[in-house]
Amino acid sequence: MTTEKIHPADRLLDAIDLIGSPVCVGLDPVVEKLPLSLRTLSPIAAISAFSVGVVKALKGIVPCVKLQSACYERFGPDGMRVLAETITAAAEAGLVTILDGKRGDIGISAEHYSSTMYDQYGADWATVNAYLGMDGVTPFLAHGGAFALVRTSNPGSDALQSIQTVHGISIAQTVAKLVAETGKVSVGVRGFSSLGAVVGATKAREAASLRILMPQQIFLVPGFGAQGGTVEDVRPCFHEDGRGAIVTASRSVIFATSDNPADWISPIQRAAESFADEIRTGILRVGISRTESTSTERR
Amino acid sequence: MTTEKIHPADRLLDAIDLIGSPVCVGLDPVVEKLPLSLRTLSPIAAISAFSVGVVKALKGIVPCVKLQSACYERFGPDGMRVLAETITAAAEAGLVTILDGKRGDIGISAEHYSSTMYDQYGADWATVNAYLGMDGVTPFLAHGGAFALVRTSNPGSDALQSIQTVHGISIAQTVAKLVAETGKVSVGVRGFSSLGAVVGATKAREAASLRILMPQQIFLVPGFGAQGGTVEDVRPCFHEDGRGAIVTASRSVIFATSDNPADWISPIQRAAESFADEIRTGILRVGISRTESTSTERR
Repeated sequence: MTTEKIHPADRLLDAIDLIGSPVCVGLDPVVEKLPLSLRTLSPIAAISAFSVGVVKALKGIVPCVKLQSACYERFGPDGMRVLAETITAAAEAGLVTILDGKRGDIGISAEHYSSTMYDQYGADWATVNAYLGMDGVTPFLAHGGAFALVRTSNPGSDALQSIQTVHGISIAQTVAKLVAETGKVSVGVRGFSSLGAVVGATKAREAASLRILMPQQIFLVPGFGAQGGTVEDVRPCFHEDGRGAIVTASRSVIFATSDNPADWISPIQRAAESFADEIRTGILRVGISRTESTSTERR
Repeated sequence: MTTEKIHPADRLLDAIDLIGSPVCVGLDPVVEKLPLSLRTLSPIAAISAFSVGVVKALKGIVPCVKLQSACYERFGPDGMRVLAETITAAAEAGLVTILDGKRGDIGISAEHYSSTMYDQYGADWATVNAYLGMDGVTPFLAHGGAFALVRTSNPGSDALQSIQTVHGISIAQTVAKLVAETGKVSVGVRGFSSLGAVVGATKAREAASLRILMPQQIFLVPGFGAQGGTVEDVRPCFHEDGRGAIVTASRSVIFATSDNPADWISPIQRAAESFADEIRTGILRVGISRTESTSTERR
């Protein structure tokens, strides 16, 4: 469950401020890449020990974790139990949780998915796919935060999302406009909507225009690190004051290796700290110096 | 699991021929609409008894059932167990199964979803969302059949899917072309691909052009009945010989009411028979008479 009555966007922004870095660690566990000491367990026990261990270890280091639903779903009902227990452990560690399931369906089914993500599993935010239209997105906003896929980081996305429409904008920009409009129904006191947007770090050239089209959306920015995105690439996803986006890293943090298999926690903590520092330095310090010379009209 | 080594499209088309009607019953169970006699059970026990009862009752009446994943997911791990048991019961009843989860993610996560849908839950087909691009769809085709969302039946879909691109086609038609091209990697002996397309019955004006763009795709056609689609509306989804599509009906069949709460099975069977007859008469008889005067060049 989300904390009572705090708007999802305010809660996420508060958590970012507390840590001082707009980052998110992605949990995409696969058995073959887990620490050796866990691989003596059954696959599902290993995924459980790893996931719960990682979220506890991230307490106070990052504001937020993102769980890749597919990595848990593939283990069937037992995997869903581990997903639930990981979200509970993350919430107990004070982390904001994003359940990355990319669901998208029409009215009543979208309502069921909203119940699933927020009530059943207790996520604060979920990722959603808006291809079916906004009647598949709106049901989420009454219950929690949702990041709609706008411009994804994978190479194959260009063949659809980059195509220009007769209105002089791309398909991704078309989705962005729909998202900006739909998100107006739920804006928190800090000026951001409970409908955010996924904008890949690998699409830096397009991020600036998407930022303008979606001023009230928090951007969830995957593709940093392992997929090739740099601090320079993610900067256009932020407002000039260094706010309004959260950068995710997954494999580069959770699969940080160790020479000592008995202590696989410390290397992950160090990798998360290093990631948080890199974004803090690259984004927030720039943001803070810019803020001193610009107004804060959005708030 | 799918029956060994039969291509998913061939298996579906064979099942349709055996029954003589290209229909699919959608299982979208919600507790509030279940037969009164089941509502004395716990919600999850009621969903289980209903789902397994319906699929057994449909044996020999329809070729195929579609399970709305959201209706099971909302009950958490226990719901996923009922989903698995319903698919097993459907397979035992000789029904082809479509798991309507509309998943869509990139490479490795798409592979996890493919494992989830076909290996973990045993579905023959799954629905997928292609907004991320074809690198999110291809991983499904090695393991089972997939229906990509092309033109959905809900009102809100127009604001995105109907928009024209600079290439003189709509966004839905753009997806259709990608689907047709991607589907060529896996075509069965009957000339259809394991990559099919969802095309809503409520979008009849667009179905004919989509049929031309996707000659090898089996169309999964929701929106018949409760959402307003008629036999005339679904006809353009078929090839002239009456093949290449499967029409789904959900609420109009599974929530067929009864005066006798002790026998809730018979009304559902009668509604399914009536639905299968309506499509058989409206599509196949037309198809057969047309086939007599046209060549069968596609096969």
